[in-house]
Amino acid sequence: MSASSVIPSTVNADLQKERDGASFNSEEFAAWWAGGAEQLKFKRGIKEYMFKDVDFAALNQVDYLSHEDMCEFAVKNSINVAKKLRQLQAERNPGGNEYWPTLYDSPELWGLHKVGNPFTVMFVMVIHALKDQCTPEQYEEFGKRVERFEVSVAYAQTELGHGTYLRGLETRADYDRETDEFVLNTPTITAYKWWPGGLGQCSNYSIVMAQLYIDGELKGPHLFYVQVREEDTHEPRPGVHIGEIGKKMGFLAVNNGFLGMKNVRIPRTRMLMRHAKVNRDGTYVKSPADALTYFAMVRTRCIIARNMSLILAVAATIGTRYSAVRRQSPIDPKLPEPQILDHVTQQLKVIPEIAASLAYRNACDYLLELFDATSRDKDQGRYERLPELHSLSCALKVLCSSDAAAGIERLRLACGGHGYLTSANLGNIYVNATAACTYEGENTVLLLQIGRFLMKSWRAAQSGAPLAPTVSYLAEVQRNPEFGVWTGSWENLVKAMQFAAANKTRIAFNNLAKRLANGQSEEVAANQTGIELTQAAELHGRAFVFHSFLTEVTGAKSKKRSSALNRVLEQLLELYLVNVTLNNMNNILRVVALTDADLNKLQSRLETALTKLRPDAVAIVDGFDFADEQLNSTLGSYDGNAYERIFDAAMSAPLNQKSVPKSFHEHLGPFMKSNL
Amino acid sequence: MSASSVIPSTVNADLQKERDGASFNSEEFAAWWAGGAEQLKFKRGIKEYMFKDVDFAALNQVDYLSHEDMCEFAVKNSINVAKKLRQLQAERNPGGNEYWPTLYDSPELWGLHKVGNPFTVMFVMVIHALKDQCTPEQYEEFGKRVERFEVSVAYAQTELGHGTYLRGLETRADYDRETDEFVLNTPTITAYKWWPGGLGQCSNYSIVMAQLYIDGELKGPHLFYVQVREEDTHEPRPGVHIGEIGKKMGFLAVNNGFLGMKNVRIPRTRMLMRHAKVNRDGTYVKSPADALTYFAMVRTRCIIARNMSLILAVAATIGTRYSAVRRQSPIDPKLPEPQILDHVTQQLKVIPEIAASLAYRNACDYLLELFDATSRDKDQGRYERLPELHSLSCALKVLCSSDAAAGIERLRLACGGHGYLTSANLGNIYVNATAACTYEGENTVLLLQIGRFLMKSWRAAQSGAPLAPTVSYLAEVQRNPEFGVWTGSWENLVKAMQFAAANKTRIAFNNLAKRLANGQSEEVAANQTGIELTQAAELHGRAFVFHSFLTEVTGAKSKKRSSALNRVLEQLLELYLVNVTLNNMNNILRVVALTDADLNKLQSRLETALTKLRPDAVAIVDGFDFADEQLNSTLGSYDGNAYERIFDAAMSAPLNQKSVPKSFHEHLGPFMKSNL
Repeated sequence: MSASSVIPSTVNADLQKERDGASFNSEEFAAWWAGGAEQLKFKRGIKEYMFKDVDFAALNQVDYLSHEDMCEFAVKNSINVAKKLRQLQAERNPGGNEYWPTLYDSPELWGLHKVGNPFTVMFVMVIHALKDQCTPEQYEEFGKRVERFEVSVAYAQTELGHGTYLRGLETRADYDRETDEFVLNTPTITAYKWWPGGLGQCSNYSIVMAQLYIDGELKGPHLFYVQVREEDTHEPRPGVHIGEIGKKMGFLAVNNGFLGMKNVRIPRTRMLMRHAKVNRDGTYVKSPADALTYFAMVRTRCIIARNMSLILAVAATIGTRYSAVRRQSPIDPKLPEPQILDHVTQQLKVIPEIAASLAYRNACDYLLELFDATSRDKDQGRYERLPELHSLSCALKVLCSSDAAAGIERLRLACGGHGYLTSANLGNIYVNATAACTYEGENTVLLLQIGRFLMKSWRAAQSGAPLAPTVSYLAEVQRNPEFGVWTGSWENLVKAMQFAAANKTRIAFNNLAKRLANGQSEEVAANQTGIELTQAAELHGRAFVFHSFLTEVTGAKSKKRSSALNRVLEQLLELYLVNVTLNNMNNILRVVALTDADLNKLQSRLETALTKLRPDAVAIVDGFDFADEQLNSTLGSYDGNAYERIFDAAMSAPLNQKSVPKSFHEHLGPFMKSNL
Repeated sequence: MSASSVIPSTVNADLQKERDGASFNSEEFAAWWAGGAEQLKFKRGIKEYMFKDVDFAALNQVDYLSHEDMCEFAVKNSINVAKKLRQLQAERNPGGNEYWPTLYDSPELWGLHKVGNPFTVMFVMVIHALKDQCTPEQYEEFGKRVERFEVSVAYAQTELGHGTYLRGLETRADYDRETDEFVLNTPTITAYKWWPGGLGQCSNYSIVMAQLYIDGELKGPHLFYVQVREEDTHEPRPGVHIGEIGKKMGFLAVNNGFLGMKNVRIPRTRMLMRHAKVNRDGTYVKSPADALTYFAMVRTRCIIARNMSLILAVAATIGTRYSAVRRQSPIDPKLPEPQILDHVTQQLKVIPEIAASLAYRNACDYLLELFDATSRDKDQGRYERLPELHSLSCALKVLCSSDAAAGIERLRLACGGHGYLTSANLGNIYVNATAACTYEGENTVLLLQIGRFLMKSWRAAQSGAPLAPTVSYLAEVQRNPEFGVWTGSWENLVKAMQFAAANKTRIAFNNLAKRLANGQSEEVAANQTGIELTQAAELHGRAFVFHSFLTEVTGAKSKKRSSALNRVLEQLLELYLVNVTLNNMNNILRVVALTDADLNKLQSRLETALTKLRPDAVAIVDGFDFADEQLNSTLGSYDGNAYERIFDAAMSAPLNQKSVPKSFHEHLGPFMKSNL
């Protein structure tokens, strides 16, 4: 904080009033949200340790640096965070890994990695890929060095001209039997590796996905461990063309890089050979199971989905607090301007996002349980639930990323002009969230994959085959295609969303069948039916979120919560179900015969839910328990001194450190004078 | 272009193929879009003159600068553009103003004002405000200096704690009868002027909106002309606290500023006194008509709406060309990867945005005609159409800004990861567009104003009073509340949207009436009905866009176009009407009894429209006639060499100019070594 700070040490009176008036205990909410009192304590302990002695005011000045200085800063900063986290691990549980590296890029540390961490990919992905793909000897050689951070390793898969479709990759690795080496090449400009985080100037090794050729014969994409820079000098290795891909909307200092290779030779033993193998004599041994590679990607998607639900909660915290502090536009001209949270239109922008982050975090909890169960099955050689897990992880990755991005933007706009300030942090949160819509499986491509799963499930249901639990409602709708009575109960709303999903699945299925009958190939027919397949996939995901949220709030777990907390959760459930139902009414009205009176009643329920949640909104976001350092927002701090913080942040802008800028003397002054 | 550029001099073959296969003449489209062949020639001439000799590669390096350097650059750059434009005026038509200052911030010059122009507000707004609000003598003194650019003047209205609601402003101007001066003060931190473009370090004068007090009696907000910096030294004047508000998501170098005043004295004659007056003796003369102030804001909104439709066309150009160049994900695995524009899901992301930009630009043409007609009426003292114009300008400002922002983001995401690159320019276009959702009247506030206008119109229709033309359909629906037969014709789709708007208006009106009958005050009842009022307003706007687009395409003007061009425009109309109808089906199904077969038919029409427009998509965006310099996008250039341009842009990033970064020697190297 600068010496001349105008920030009071007291909490904003409007915000305090909100807290005093809450109908439930924020601490109980926080413990529930964190997964128990122990977990809450653990998380708070981490934050206290890690945020202590960090000069956040100085950290925020990084926003004003040049791109190059920002990137240089991020390297230093990320290393400092790593050191501190390792120290925490050493102090609390030497030899363990629950702090380092597990938490290096966790939500608890959001705010510390200002402008990004170029080493995130190494610990979120590379180390897991090495575990999955290395032989034990290879892991000993490559993986352990990563664990110790002796090397910096990127994961290079995507190419300038190739993303989602792995078989389209152009980078090639030819086996040279004479020297027992692979020769890596980037045959065209579109074959350049493009986008890998940390690759640019921060890595000296990289996992590289390349087309394996033996005696000129293509064996498909495989992974290779390639040294890209010298360990001592950091100079690029011979034949390696490496650097960063330039500035982006966000992830400014993540150092996303490019890599071109010209006859780069690596020993044969640097192909990751846990599954597929190339022997000394050039014989090729195929992988016994592709499922393992694909399982690592499922894990990453689950984590993305969960993080997206949390990043939406961060934005909702900022938007809610600011809406309680800001006063604007009279409702009654005889009274002072109200808190903007009293405007019903503002409530509709803010409170449903609180509910959505809850619904999604909760759905991700179920997903992660399914992941663990499927993971245990897999270790025992049982792969039955893999397609369902794949489909569900795709659905939640898509919905959480796209709805979080849209929700964050709604919340930012709900903060008016001030939401546009960098110091509000909502813009930065948005560009982080929207990136997740295209990375790790572009959302539309994933929806089409879910669509295919739904087509298979629909066909299976028709033939009476058993369905996976999360799609079993499709069989039920086939058996009882009439929706029956509309009651408007929560169970009825869940059922309506399932019927909408099933109906769109049916429509897509029938159109697909019609196109096939007309002689179209399966691929062309699937493309022609693409719009309905993606719509069915989205509705399917929504039905799952509806169902899991209902289960969490009204199920057995409710017995462990106080009635006051349950009441709030029920209101959030009510708001979420009613609001999302109204937003999907175009599809629901095709299967459920709602009268005009029914629709008016739903609208009235929406308004009532907003009114009921209004007095608890601030206490709920308090229960998310984000520290000011995680929020890093002038608009959303716990004390609600938004205006003073905006003011303070502005005063520290570099241009404001001198009374007259250089450009006046050099340009503006002489120009205006010349016009006199 | 750097010496080592990899960009070929030929047009990408896929893009050339698209152009060769188009069903119509892009040049005819371009002339129609520009408003005639003469206009097209005029615009091309401006661009040729203004872009000549500009080093755009150097211009793009500005993205990598520090915030301060960026701001300094923008001052120099904006002055250079002003000089060049004045020179153009002098060469082509000395004494005129069709080039300077008219075009200083026009779409034709997009791309030149890299990172923003701090003097935009002066020529888009200040000069018009001075014309509207100054006495002739005052304009001679203040306005002429602006015209000559002898001074730099900001427009300070919004305060840190106050935006939309002008009567809530806190800045005060007290008349001091003794000295014949006004004394300006910023009584609190929330009273600081906040956000005015160019105010920070670039202005030496400002129009200031302040509460006028005479003998302690409040007279409401008035405008004052205040010197904020010395003309010769540019030092802030005594009592003036001025600077920039800090970094933002976009408009990086527009130098949005803050202003605090402590007993700043100005002569009485510096209140802008064309309408309201304060005499020497302190007597106050009220303005005879407030409508004039409000008329200037209407003008600004019309221009914003029009620019938003054009910025969406820019993004659609980039997204379409890239979709024709990028090949990804096989449809048929036996064939090479297709142009992504062949994926139906991609078509749905891209082509409707082309149609939307057309529909909105066209609606704005009608709006601008209404503006001119109303302006002429006003000059003759006739104010009847003012409320309608106000309402329509609000509706199009809201729809154009929010749909453009959403559409640009869809287009950016349709470009996958590469859309996230700064060099793609879509991120920058997005932050420019989304800002328009909150500036110059926050969108929700404007929707509520339209909602009030609809309530008045509904009541008037009930009493048989005549309605303004753009709301006359409300009276028709009252007279014939049954929709009648669904035919699915274009006229029928327009009628359906009007019925949806009228129905939501009716629902809001009835709920409002019920709440009033229950004893709620008008204000509280309006707030409670806020959601439905905003929905009615949005549908009303959509109905207008539907109607005006239908009129343009099928009306008398079609006779002036070739049948080939008309066919394309009809397909765009078909796509637009069907797609927006489907997206609003939740409201339409409440008033029109569509069967499942009707809905399937609409879906099929959507797919057919996409298929028909697919081969013409590139030629249509060519017809928008944006120069590469306006697009400034590696993905969207006319030659389609997207990959080479991405590559080239990356190579010029500052970090890539040395083989090893400083941070390796200082941080990463020593750290990894210490872990060995």
